[in-house]
Formats: sequence, structure tokens, C-alpha cells
Amino acid sequence: MTDSNKHACASLENLYRIFTVPEAPDSTLMQLDDAISDNMIGFLQQHIVAEETDLLEIEKDFTNTDIPEEPVFVSEQTEFLLEKVVAQSVHTASPSFIGHMTSALPYFMIPLSKIMIALNQNLVKTETSKAFTPLERQVLGMMHRLIYQSGEEFYQRWLHDSHQHLGAFCSGGTVANITALWAARNRAFGADGEFRGIAQEGVFKAFKHYGVDGAAILVSKRGHYSLSKAVDVLGIGREYIVAVDTDENNRIRPDLLQKKIDLLKKENVKPLAIVGIAGTTETGNVDPLDKLADIAEAEGIHFHVDAAWGGPAIFSRAHGKLLKGIERADSVTIDAHKQLYVPMGVGMVLFKDPAALNSIEHHAQYIIRQGSKDLGSNTLEGSRPGMAMLVHSGLNIIGRQGYELLVDQGIEKARLFADMIRQSDDFEVISEPELNILTYRWAPASVRRVLVDADPDVRKRANDILNKINRYVQKALREHGRSFVSRTRLTPKRYDQQLITVYRVVLANPLTTTEILVDVLEEQRQIVTDKALRKRMNQLQELLGKNAA
Amino acid sequence: MTDSNKHACASLENLYRIFTVPEAPDSTLMQLDDAISDNMIGFLQQHIVAEETDLLEIEKDFTNTDIPEEPVFVSEQTEFLLEKVVAQSVHTASPSFIGHMTSALPYFMIPLSKIMIALNQNLVKTETSKAFTPLERQVLGMMHRLIYQSGEEFYQRWLHDSHQHLGAFCSGGTVANITALWAARNRAFGADGEFRGIAQEGVFKAFKHYGVDGAAILVSKRGHYSLSKAVDVLGIGREYIVAVDTDENNRIRPDLLQKKIDLLKKENVKPLAIVGIAGTTETGNVDPLDKLADIAEAEGIHFHVDAAWGGPAIFSRAHGKLLKGIERADSVTIDAHKQLYVPMGVGMVLFKDPAALNSIEHHAQYIIRQGSKDLGSNTLEGSRPGMAMLVHSGLNIIGRQGYELLVDQGIEKARLFADMIRQSDDFEVISEPELNILTYRWAPASVRRVLVDADPDVRKRANDILNKINRYVQKALREHGRSFVSRTRLTPKRYDQQLITVYRVVLANPLTTTEILVDVLEEQRQIVTDKALRKRMNQLQELLGKNAA
Repeated sequence: MTDSNKHACASLENLYRIFTVPEAPDSTLMQLDDAISDNMIGFLQQHIVAEETDLLEIEKDFTNTDIPEEPVFVSEQTEFLLEKVVAQSVHTASPSFIGHMTSALPYFMIPLSKIMIALNQNLVKTETSKAFTPLERQVLGMMHRLIYQSGEEFYQRWLHDSHQHLGAFCSGGTVANITALWAARNRAFGADGEFRGIAQEGVFKAFKHYGVDGAAILVSKRGHYSLSKAVDVLGIGREYIVAVDTDENNRIRPDLLQKKIDLLKKENVKPLAIVGIAGTTETGNVDPLDKLADIAEAEGIHFHVDAAWGGPAIFSRAHGKLLKGIERADSVTIDAHKQLYVPMGVGMVLFKDPAALNSIEHHAQYIIRQGSKDLGSNTLEGSRPGMAMLVHSGLNIIGRQGYELLVDQGIEKARLFADMIRQSDDFEVISEPELNILTYRWAPASVRRVLVDADPDVRKRANDILNKINRYVQKALREHGRSFVSRTRLTPKRYDQQLITVYRVVLANPLTTTEILVDVLEEQRQIVTDKALRKRMNQLQELLGKNAA
Repeated sequence: MTDSNKHACASLENLYRIFTVPEAPDSTLMQLDDAISDNMIGFLQQHIVAEETDLLEIEKDFTNTDIPEEPVFVSEQTEFLLEKVVAQSVHTASPSFIGHMTSALPYFMIPLSKIMIALNQNLVKTETSKAFTPLERQVLGMMHRLIYQSGEEFYQRWLHDSHQHLGAFCSGGTVANITALWAARNRAFGADGEFRGIAQEGVFKAFKHYGVDGAAILVSKRGHYSLSKAVDVLGIGREYIVAVDTDENNRIRPDLLQKKIDLLKKENVKPLAIVGIAGTTETGNVDPLDKLADIAEAEGIHFHVDAAWGGPAIFSRAHGKLLKGIERADSVTIDAHKQLYVPMGVGMVLFKDPAALNSIEHHAQYIIRQGSKDLGSNTLEGSRPGMAMLVHSGLNIIGRQGYELLVDQGIEKARLFADMIRQSDDFEVISEPELNILTYRWAPASVRRVLVDADPDVRKRANDILNKINRYVQKALREHGRSFVSRTRLTPKRYDQQLITVYRVVLANPLTTTEILVDVLEEQRQIVTDKALRKRMNQLQELLGKNAA
């Protein structure tokens, strides 16, 4: 045997080893594995660096694009991940991380995920998923029933029917929304006489056949950007997202929606779908779904509800009624990795009519054969992991009452925080919490008093300065690393629809305490006194007069 | 405190517990966790039932659509999952599971996945992913370099540029293909004079502006069904997938491709993209990519390569040349959950031109702001998990040489199996392995000899009977549960393009031994003698005469 052959054999042995020999219990990797099992909270606290490092600095550890010729030891890679990736990741599970929709996970999700990953099923086809297929269909049935309450007989009839689908699992809300609008588009421009349908012939021939100049999706101006992605992907065009104005609580105005529909029809543009929002991403508001359903019904338009965030509010007897009308939606998006507390990334789209997904059906010989129970035939994605197992576990282990508590305490906490802000002298609530999201900004009462009566131009300039101050405060808070609120811009009526920079708070982590909320305000107050802001403060004072600072 | 209040408090406490108190080390769940760490192979062997249970039978355990009011104990849920889900799942990691593209995982992937899940990052935005963002971009750079070899300067310039993207991560090859064709569509029908581009105005106005009656995607008839999903989603229409005939080795015929392009142009249909396949799903063949690149270049058409399966062949010095020409592709799809041995579900699409993904750019105020490094602006999906960490680990721990070995030994094994089949008297190779996939069927030499000279009608009827026999054999093998090959239908030239049912074998698991392959053939031979097949055998004999059986 030559030397080079010996080397190759040695490597082949190594290769078999990584597939057959477990990591040693005392290896760095398995110690981390144990540490997560024993105390995930401790693991995250210990290993994630709180204080923010500049992204440009972090990037320096990720510049090599050469794939190593020789393998790197598992221990070496683990050390790298620990020092450079884990340490510089975001502590999304922290109770003071209240700026985005990614929150803590229940402990049981971690070992269950490990089982799921070890099984490595592929849901595209029953031959690579077996029991996972009926499991996924069951979960879709559970969520469908939660929303539509269609009765036992309905579910017994359709749950496992190979030609019908109560919904689809996917990687997240964006794909869910695209899937819903895809089905809506294909149904609106279905086969008709010699025309074989938009799925077959495309948008161009469909519009020609139906004699329309366009098709539009109507949604409030608070609609998620995934809808704009959706109309781009679907060949409808981003200009055909018709953004309808909202009331002062960020809820779509049905009267204006109706006007837009009338206008579209005059312009020979077909209204393809009305999208109601149950939990706007920025402010957590819920559209008047029942009124939207009325309009959709009267006009014969597909009614989709984007409940990616707010869907689980249905679990709450106290707040579920906010979503009244969702049961009349043709399709509903719900994210499991948001308020079902399942790891990233899994979403669902549910369809009232179990035949709706047939409009996007695809088949292939070697996979997803016609008439089979293969799930790949009615999903946008192909290969998919068995995340349904985690949703199933959440629904069972947390249960209806558990999710209700999670929803209720989040909303209570948001109201409490809004009260705290109102009672403070130096902050202003911009959007009231309807669910568990609110926005606010630093704007002392003295400034606000002057602002109200100020000349519109002065008000505008003052708000511009406040925007810069609040932007600074949000960034500084993030950099300190003790807590995190996000930032967005809203156009409140009280400020003449001017773009106002606000802090956005999402209260989904059950471990977030009142003390944490107190501390956030206190730290923001501190940041406001930063030397770096002195110039802005002076500008504000000059503009508004001494009374305002 | 009332009784009902006490109950609620108790539940709230329970709720906090699931977020703060680790599962007990002696709980069923943690014992499974340990069992997977100690011996994943053993865990899977012990817990997955080999013999197949009918899906209708399995479904009975998944019929309840009520979400439980009261929470279920973690132990109870774990027992359910173990008995009803894990036991009835598919042993995709088994070395004798050689029918699909889901294979075994290296051990280190499991604890690394656990870390990834515990961190629960969201790649849509740096505020929820920090170091994971440059990490993901680095991996895209590594894969880009593997394919395009653009030189150090190129990568230093673009790797972390906030306005450019070397590619995108996604949940799998389907989304990767859609993303590539989406970008191709948007670039082909970009803004032009008063026309603001197809992304803004949609397919209808784009076709009108550019004066075309359609747009088409050209691919061999062995193209993956995701392309048909893609043209449906993208509003182009399924009829505009132009399926080009292949040579006897399932590779696209460039001469016929050119003819199709000429024809499309005569019909005023714009050829939008040529898709070359590097590893057809059914037969593992690779199109002549260099010739496709020539045509695409001469015609000015986007050239996409679907290397979801075969991409990693580039790692091999011996076989990488099969993919020559891939470096000229405008975009390339590669799945990480296939031959990079990463858990389900993660794929990538790479773009030669780092500006290509700007054609699908989206922004939002609260997230993925313009000019930020937020990855959500140029991906089809929104929220996404940190799977890049696992791809990074595979590339480092397995290394170039390791992947080369995996590729080489898979191809060798496929050739060896093809030889075994050829040397046997009772099986027939239908498609020769070019990569690590082959197809064959049961068809004794005596039958084949008669078939060759038989009357076409007799040949057809005999093949129909053989199809039924082979279908039965494939199903029976699966039901026995000792091994698994999949099944598809091909149209080999030697049988006048008749649909022939074949067994499809994918040799990606490094633990699959020659003995396993011998056993598969032996078991299939046994099944052929089943009483249930006696009638078919008689039909065959009657049709072909005594010499043939």
C-alpha cells in the first residue's frame, strides 16, 4: 500500500467514525450539550456576551471563504463557535430582550427538538416521514378547529383525506402568506372554457382571458412586508398592494377599504384578496375582522387573515373576541415560532375550504404521487423537517389554558407598562397596547405641552429632533446590552402623520418582570443625559423655548 | 382567594416552571436525550419499528383535533411520541434505507443543532442574529468560491457588503430554485423607460411593455417538479416549462434545446432561463453544463444550475469535472440537507453576480432597513433559523477531503451495485450511475432476450406486466422493513420510450455495505416467488412463450 493510499484509508476511517462513534462524554461539545440540558438559562447567560460589539468588528472572524482542505477537529470547531458565534449571538431568551418577536422557549422544546433532528424525517413524502404525516395533518386539524370550529364530523371527514388539505406547514409566516395568496390567485383566475387556468397559462393570459388590467391585494398600511414580497413573487406587482389608511389605533378603516375596492373596479383591476391583520407587526393591533369579512363576502373576494403574531389570542377567553370574524376568513396565517413558543422556523396556513389548496397541486412520479398522502403536493416548499412534532407537543403540554395564560399575562404586562409610561413625566405612549405590543418614545410632558400648540412647522422640526434623540437612545440601550427594545417609525394622527421614531416593545416572554420594565425606562432616562445628546437638547430648547426642556 | 383563583395561580406557576426549570435528569425525556447522545444509532434502531404498519392504521392515533384544555404531562407526551411517532417514523439513517435522498447524519450535528435551537436566533435581522449574520454570509462565500472560484479580492470586496449578496440561505432546494428564477424574471423584465419593472408592475404590464406573449423556462424532461411549482408561483404558467428531450443517459440534448429556443422566439415567447441539472432526482445524471452555458451566453439567457443533489460532487477531484461549466451559471441551487449531511431543512442559492439579488429586494421600517446588513431584505423567506452554523461546521469538520471521500465512495458503490446487477441473471440496470444514483428492475435475462426481438405490441404488454411485478416487489420490500429502495417510472429508449417502472437507489450513506446491496437483491428475488405474483408470472409466460420464464 502506498503512502497516499494509507492516508486515504485513515481518512475513510475517520469518516466512518463521525457517522458511528458518539462524541465523547467529556468532549467540549458534549459538555455544552449537558450544560444546555442542565440549565439552559445559565448556559445562555454565561456564554452570550451582553455588551454589544460592533458588527464590523464581529465580521472580522468570518472573512475566510476557503473550505479547509484537511478536517478541523470537532473540539476546535466547538471552541470557535463558542467564542465567536455563541458569545456574539443575541440573547433572545432574555426576559429583558423585549424588542422583537423571538422569545424564550419552554425547556421541553430542546430535548424534543433533538429527537426530531436525530430522526431527520422529510415531510415531503410519507416514505420519508410515515407517522409524521398524519401527525402534521392532526396539528393542522387542531389549529383549523381552533380558528373555524367546524365540528367533529367535518374533521373526521377531511383530516386525513388524501385529496383535501386543512392547511399547510411551512418555514414561517412569509411562506404562509405567499401560499394563501397563491391559492387565492389561482382560484380567482381558474380554468374557464378554453382557458386552462392561471396555474397553467400564467398571469398574462389569465388577465387577458378575464379582461382585467390588474389584480390587487388590499391591506392596511400596517400590513407586513411579506405581502409586498408575495405580490412581487406572484407576478401581480408591488404596486398592486393597495394600502388602506388606518384609524388612530392602527386598524384598517373599512369605509376606506370599500372606497378602494370601488375605485379598483372602476380601473378594471380585480380585487384579489382582502388581508386582515390580527396583530400588526409594529403595534400589535387587530383589524375589525368581522367588518372585513362582510365586505369580502359581499364583494366575493378572498379574505385572508395574517394572524402570524396574534393568532394565539384566540386561546384567551378575555381577549379572543378581539379576533372575532377570523372564523369567516378563507385562509389564516399563524406562526408557531412566535406565540406558540416553538423554535425557529415554523409557520402554518389554514384554509376554511379543504379543497382550496388543490389550486396549487403538483405531482411527480418518484415522489408525491397523485392520490397519495404525500404532503409535498400541496406546499410551496418541498423537503421539510418534522417541526409539527414540536407544535403538537406545545399544544398538548401547554394546553389551551396555558396558552391563554401566556396571552393574558402578556397583554396585562403591556397595559401595565403603558400605565407606567403615562405616569412618568418623560415618556409618551405612541400606540396603546391592544395585544402585547406597544410603542412609546422619550418626550417630556413639558415638551409635549408646547408641541400641541406650536406652529405646525415648529412641531415638525421639534419632532425631527426628538426622532434623532430617540434613535440615539434606542441604539445606546442596545449597545449597553442590559435590555433591548426595537425601533420603528409611525405616523400618529396627533403629529399630523409625521414620521415619528418610537421604541417598540413586545411582551411575550413570561419571565419579563415589572422591575425589568422599570429598569428599561430608568436606563433610557440615563441615556438621555448623555453628553453626546447635549447639542440636540439645546436645539430642542432653542426651538421650543425654555419651558420645554 | 377563591378556588378558581388558586387554580389559576397554580397554573401560572406551572407556566413559569416550563420556562425556568430544566427537565429532571431521570425523566423519560431526558433519558431519551441521553440515549441519543450516547448512541444515536442504537436509539434509532431500538425505537423505530422496522416492519411497516399501514398508514391507515397509523392515522388512527392522530384523529383528535381538540386542543386539550388542561395541560398534558411532559412524560405523557414523551411516551406518546415514543410509541406513536418515533416508533412509526422512517429510519432514514439506516444503511439499508437507500431509496431517497435523506440519509444518516454525522454525530456532531446533533449536539450542534441543540446549541442552535437553544440560541433560537432569527436571521431575518441582525438585531436577532448578530454573529449569525456574518457567519451565514461567510458560508455563502465559501459555497460561492467552491463553485465560482472568483479569487480572494472578489470575496474580500463583496462578502460583507450590505448592498450585495453572494446568495441566500433558505429552507430547501425548492425555495432556492424559486428564488433564482424570481431574480431571473425580475432582471429579464427590469425597469425600462417609463416602465418601472416587473417587480413593481407585474407580469401583465411587463409582457405588454416588452411586447412578448409569454416567457419560458427550458429544462430537460428530467427537471425537478419544483421548477413547475416555480413557474406557477411566479405567474409564468406551468405550460411555459419547456421540457427538452434527453439522450439515453438522461442528459439534456443541447441541439434540441437550441431548437426549442428558436421555436419560442418565433412564437414571441421570451426564453427566461435555461436550467441545467447537476444530479437529476431520479437518475443522478448531470447535464452538459458547459454546452448549456454556451447557448445561454450566445442567447443572453439566464443560466441556472439545479445542483441541489449533485453540487457537492465538485469536492471530488475525480468526479468534479462532471460539473464543468457550473462556474458559468448565473445561479446555482445546492441543498445542505442532502449531500452536505446537515439536518433537514436547509438549502442555498448562489449568484455569480453579487448584485443579482437586488432585483428582489424588500425593506420595512421596523426590520430589514435599507443599507442595513439584515438578511431578510433579499430572501424569499422572512424569519429563518441559524442553520448556517451547521453548514459551517460540516464544511470545517468534514473538510474538502472528507466530502470528496463521501462523494467518491458513493459513486464507487453505485458502480459496484450496477456491476452486481449486470452480473446477476434476473435484474436489469435501467439507468447507469453517473453520480451515486442508479435505477434497475427485475427482468430476467431470458425475458429480456425475448423482449428484444418481440413484436412491439408484445413488448409493450410484457413490460406492462413487468411493471406490475416490479411495483409489487418494491412495495413488499418496503413493508418487510429490512431495506428500502424507491420507485419511479422512466422512458428508456430501448423500450420505445414506454413508461418502465424501476427501483431507484440513492447511495449516500457511507455505512451502506456491499452485503446490504447483496441482501437487497436477494430479498427482491425472494419476493418475486411470492404466491401473489403467480398470476402475473403466468401471464408473462403465456405472452412470451416458455423460453422466457
